[in-house]
Amino acid sequence: MKKDKDFQLSCPIPIKDYPQVLLAHGSGGVLMHQLIEKIFHAVFKNPILDQAHDGAVLDISGGKIATTTDSFVVYPLFFPGGDIGSLAVHGTVNDLAMCGARPKYLTAGFILEEGLPMETLWRVVNSMQQAAQDAGVQIVAGDTKVVDKGKADGIFINTTGIGIIEHDREILPQSIEEGDVIVLSGDIGRHGIAIMAVREGLSFESEIKSDAASLSDLVMKIFDTKASIKCLRDLTRGGLATSLVEIAKTSGLSIEIEEKKISVREDVNAACEILGLDPLYVANEGRFICFVPPQDADKVLKVMMSHPQGKGAGIIGYVKKDKNADVIMQNQIGTLRIIDMLSGGQLPRIC
Amino acid sequence: MKKDKDFQLSCPIPIKDYPQVLLAHGSGGVLMHQLIEKIFHAVFKNPILDQAHDGAVLDISGGKIATTTDSFVVYPLFFPGGDIGSLAVHGTVNDLAMCGARPKYLTAGFILEEGLPMETLWRVVNSMQQAAQDAGVQIVAGDTKVVDKGKADGIFINTTGIGIIEHDREILPQSIEEGDVIVLSGDIGRHGIAIMAVREGLSFESEIKSDAASLSDLVMKIFDTKASIKCLRDLTRGGLATSLVEIAKTSGLSIEIEEKKISVREDVNAACEILGLDPLYVANEGRFICFVPPQDADKVLKVMMSHPQGKGAGIIGYVKKDKNADVIMQNQIGTLRIIDMLSGGQLPRIC
Repeated sequence: MKKDKDFQLSCPIPIKDYPQVLLAHGSGGVLMHQLIEKIFHAVFKNPILDQAHDGAVLDISGGKIATTTDSFVVYPLFFPGGDIGSLAVHGTVNDLAMCGARPKYLTAGFILEEGLPMETLWRVVNSMQQAAQDAGVQIVAGDTKVVDKGKADGIFINTTGIGIIEHDREILPQSIEEGDVIVLSGDIGRHGIAIMAVREGLSFESEIKSDAASLSDLVMKIFDTKASIKCLRDLTRGGLATSLVEIAKTSGLSIEIEEKKISVREDVNAACEILGLDPLYVANEGRFICFVPPQDADKVLKVMMSHPQGKGAGIIGYVKKDKNADVIMQNQIGTLRIIDMLSGGQLPRIC
Repeated sequence: MKKDKDFQLSCPIPIKDYPQVLLAHGSGGVLMHQLIEKIFHAVFKNPILDQAHDGAVLDISGGKIATTTDSFVVYPLFFPGGDIGSLAVHGTVNDLAMCGARPKYLTAGFILEEGLPMETLWRVVNSMQQAAQDAGVQIVAGDTKVVDKGKADGIFINTTGIGIIEHDREILPQSIEEGDVIVLSGDIGRHGIAIMAVREGLSFESEIKSDAASLSDLVMKIFDTKASIKCLRDLTRGGLATSLVEIAKTSGLSIEIEEKKISVREDVNAACEILGLDPLYVANEGRFICFVPPQDADKVLKVMMSHPQGKGAGIIGYVKKDKNADVIMQNQIGTLRIIDMLSGGQLPRIC
């Protein structure tokens, strides 16, 4: 990552005085208070956080809210297309969107390793705030712990989100029915491959960038169509395959998909071959599937294809009644293959 | 910690097959799903969590909610009077109570180190559930990450809480006024000393147990008195001294306290002397201060003293108008001392 003199100088804790995070930055004294005020509060500034109390009080105008939590331990902290800060926002915003909720508030819990460069923290915190602004959410409460060198790995971030549900639908695997079609929002596998390429030192003609992005704007636009959305799922750890298997098992229905309808970029496919990975199982951070009745599929597709996060959308399969609750894929040459979860997993620390 | 054969056998993942957490337990495959179903969902079982979706949908009957987040990195994981699991519940429940909210829901984010004994995880998760039950909260969403051996320290837990505010008061440092009295709920310093005693291998005639406990029941009973509560604060990292300094700075008012009114157990005092610590700065996990107008102090005190978490309660000082926003302590021999934050902190990884 390029060091940027101006960016370093913009850090309100002088990097020349405190080039690294110290254990004392987590111990409840003056240094911890400076870290919180000058880094976290300065960047995440909003009236709720400014109350500087143990928690945030939120006005919720009745009805239902959704909540979700995610810890981010991605390695490396910076990767093509994002970093742990923006990912920690996108990941939780997307999980709220997948509940059919409009993301409103995030909390942020940081576990910092003693010795973390202050510049890295400053960069990550700014990236979080940019992602939060773009997604229309506020970071309303936070917490910082520092652990001894060697007892963590740079930065871990937990974000927990609160969103408002503005409709009466139950967006759940249990809501899907026989005949529903499955719309996939774009090409798969880029997030996992972008990270693995950095870790393995692979380079390609053009850099593979993570697909990490906030999906809430697109999801809210899909709800605006009044389509009977049944279930939404973002394709993170375990990829498309694992998400489909989870939904089949939870709903008790089978799912049939066609391999040729699933878009994988050529460079991603090539990288998967080199790394021995199956793109169906590779993590995405800006892709999702949407279950809708066939009569609503066209209007959902139209909205998706006219949105930056859904340009490559298409129907990849449908829900079948079948007591096995299997996921079956028709491959390129027409034969059927049962898709299952992997026993372990392909990629640790991808999110 | 005593190994308990029956407890080991109660673990739904056979400890003889999986004595330790593997990286694959965090990678999105079958093993991760087993860990989530057989450990987390089995113990935290409730209808909201059982939906097994990306997030939880909560019915909030209008009005205001409070949210707060905390990551727990305490070392050692087990200590006299508690463990990281119960602490992760008490800490967040208490932060909600300090907002004047009735704690309702928690999310739980786990970062596990590869190689963590499965029995430890099983024990911690059960302890969390017991603490949640005792405090009347449900764990409604969760997340699990596993990082490589040496990149974390056993278990880190983030809990984020949601509580309902059932009154119109603004419980904030900004609400305190000249003349308000400060009620302390009991003796201070036990949590920090209980942990340091284990770390340093100190032993005392009788074991010093952490004061860690849920304060929400007591706080709700204080609200029931209709006393004009202005501000509440639990005395965690940085202890009583740091909490008072934070409130003075935020409110712009000064605080005067009397040392002889602050109760510290004799064995805690002795341990503080050995360890070179000032009990005013030592962390508590079951103690709080309450700011009330003098005319309401008696009814608050009465409720506190008749409750297990407030038996040792007493008035320790009051709020003064003074533009310095200082905390001043009259010590045992009558002289005044300005209390300030410590530059670093006394005790890392105490919560």
